[in-house]
Amino acid sequence: MAVEIPTDREVFTTTVKVRFYELDPYDHVNHTNYFSYFETARIEYLGEMGWGLDMLKEQGWQLVVVEITARFLVAARLGDELTIHTWVADVGRVKSTWKQVIYRGDQEVAHATVTAAFTDLAGRPRRVPEEFTHLP
Amino acid sequence: MAVEIPTDREVFTTTVKVRFYELDPYDHVNHTNYFSYFETARIEYLGEMGWGLDMLKEQGWQLVVVEITARFLVAARLGDELTIHTWVADVGRVKSTWKQVIYRGDQEVAHATVTAAFTDLAGRPRRVPEEFTHLP
Amino acid sequence: MAVEIPTDREVFTTTVKVRFYELDPYDHVNHTNYFSYFETARIEYLGEMGWGLDMLKEQGWQLVVVEITARFLVAARLGDELTIHTWVADVGRVKSTWKQVIYRGDQEVAHATVTAAFTDLAGRPRRVPEEFTHLP
Amino acid sequence: MAVEIPTDREVFTTTVKVRFYELDPYDHVNHTNYFSYFETARIEYLGEMGWGLDMLKEQGWQLVVVEITARFLVAARLGDELTIHTWVADVGRVKSTWKQVIYRGDQEVAHATVTAAFTDLAGRPRRVPEEFTHLP
Repeated sequence: MAVEIPTDREVFTTTVKVRFYELDPYDHVNHTNYFSYFETARIEYLGEMGWGLDMLKEQGWQLVVVEITARFLVAARLGDELTIHTWVADVGRVKSTWKQVIYRGDQEVAHATVTAAFTDLAGRPRRVPEEFTHLP
Repeated sequence: MAVEIPTDREVFTTTVKVRFYELDPYDHVNHTNYFSYFETARIEYLGEMGWGLDMLKEQGWQLVVVEITARFLVAARLGDELTIHTWVADVGRVKSTWKQVIYRGDQEVAHATVTAAFTDLAGRPRRVPEEFTHLP
Repeated sequence: MAVEIPTDREVFTTTVKVRFYELDPYDHVNHTNYFSYFETARIEYLGEMGWGLDMLKEQGWQLVVVEITARFLVAARLGDELTIHTWVADVGRVKSTWKQVIYRGDQEVAHATVTAAFTDLAGRPRRVPEEFTHLP
Repeated sequence: MAVEIPTDREVFTTTVKVRFYELDPYDHVNHTNYFSYFETARIEYLGEMGWGLDMLKEQGWQLVVVEITARFLVAARLGDELTIHTWVADVGRVKSTWKQVIYRGDQEVAHATVTAAFTDLAGRPRRVPEEFTHLP
């Protein structure tokens, strides 16, 4: 069930710290927040590649999430520092597939597969940028 | 401590229903969500006045919150249907003062005074629209 | 790609209205919020079945999300009133599978398949309640 | 308008990094998120004092926000690393007054005054713990 982090391609790593308002009445992180953690990591990765939000909007790009499958293994708690590993697994003409896994120390907390499409600002499909196809 | 709803001016009323993820480990609505409820009501009111988001952005307006004072009287719980009353208490050259009160049935839950400034999209102060000055 | 709402079993229907703070810089609902909408609907459904949050916690139950697959078809916008249909597709010894679909009018916005496990408050698997097995 | 950080008492300092989903259609942090940042800092400070969430709940304490006044000076943006300074300004029999200020580098972004009451888990006022009265 554990997700293997690939060694043959670029993997972007960042961290998030759990905040109090992300907890629910069961005293753990409400599962909906993991989708925000995953997104935060993808956006940071894009920024590091040179596709910051301002540049994307100026040049008329958005990266729209089409499908997500996420699996939750253990519950994160207040103050946990989580590490998120993100990589691009596959790139097509418009769509790209991202893999992400969240750890707390050496324990896997959750993982996700995200399909995202490049579109223009009106949401019409737009061909994946050339630089992007070299990633996986 | 209760806030009086004025009878001599327009008061906009809307409702929100508490959602599970807004609860915190104490099983009540985390107080930070009331600011989202207040904002939701102000934005709906602006929309009803003809200042929908698309129109505001096209014409280069934003209504920026400068200051908020909020008081919390009782805790809202899962499934509560809350009623929010909103009115404009005062309008200056750039700033406007809004009053808002949240009820659950006939019980006051929270109230707020919000100072907001009209600005352009870069955040520079912009004179309050003429129609707006007739509100209070 | 559209999800068929079943006619041979109970389907729970509720609505949510998009709030301003759920929008992202692309002026549509950030995709992470759909997971909150889905959750809100499941929790309301549980409440209607007699498993309100207070009762669940008192009796030592939680319904933990193990896996979600969600697909996003169109972008929801400010003020949209969304209708969420929810049904239980399958029930095992510990896990249950839920299907959910979100509409705006007669247009499908998103759908999800959610696997959830009944556990005790410490997160240990607990056999699905008898009443629950009659649902699908 | 700037808030002075006191030098004659304990000041707790922590950081938060702005996340994509906290941005609104104006490409800056929606103001409601600052209340979450403020709360996160207070909770971390309590944890450092020895009042972690588990301990508070076990011993039947909650720290309920009664009133907040917040002022917003500049808009934070994606990726900004914000520093939050928090101190206890005053302690009464049940209520305490907290001051908080958020900086981006050496620029003040926002500040708040928060009145919070210690209560039991049912929300009934409870006398401030002895250790707490030594803070300011």
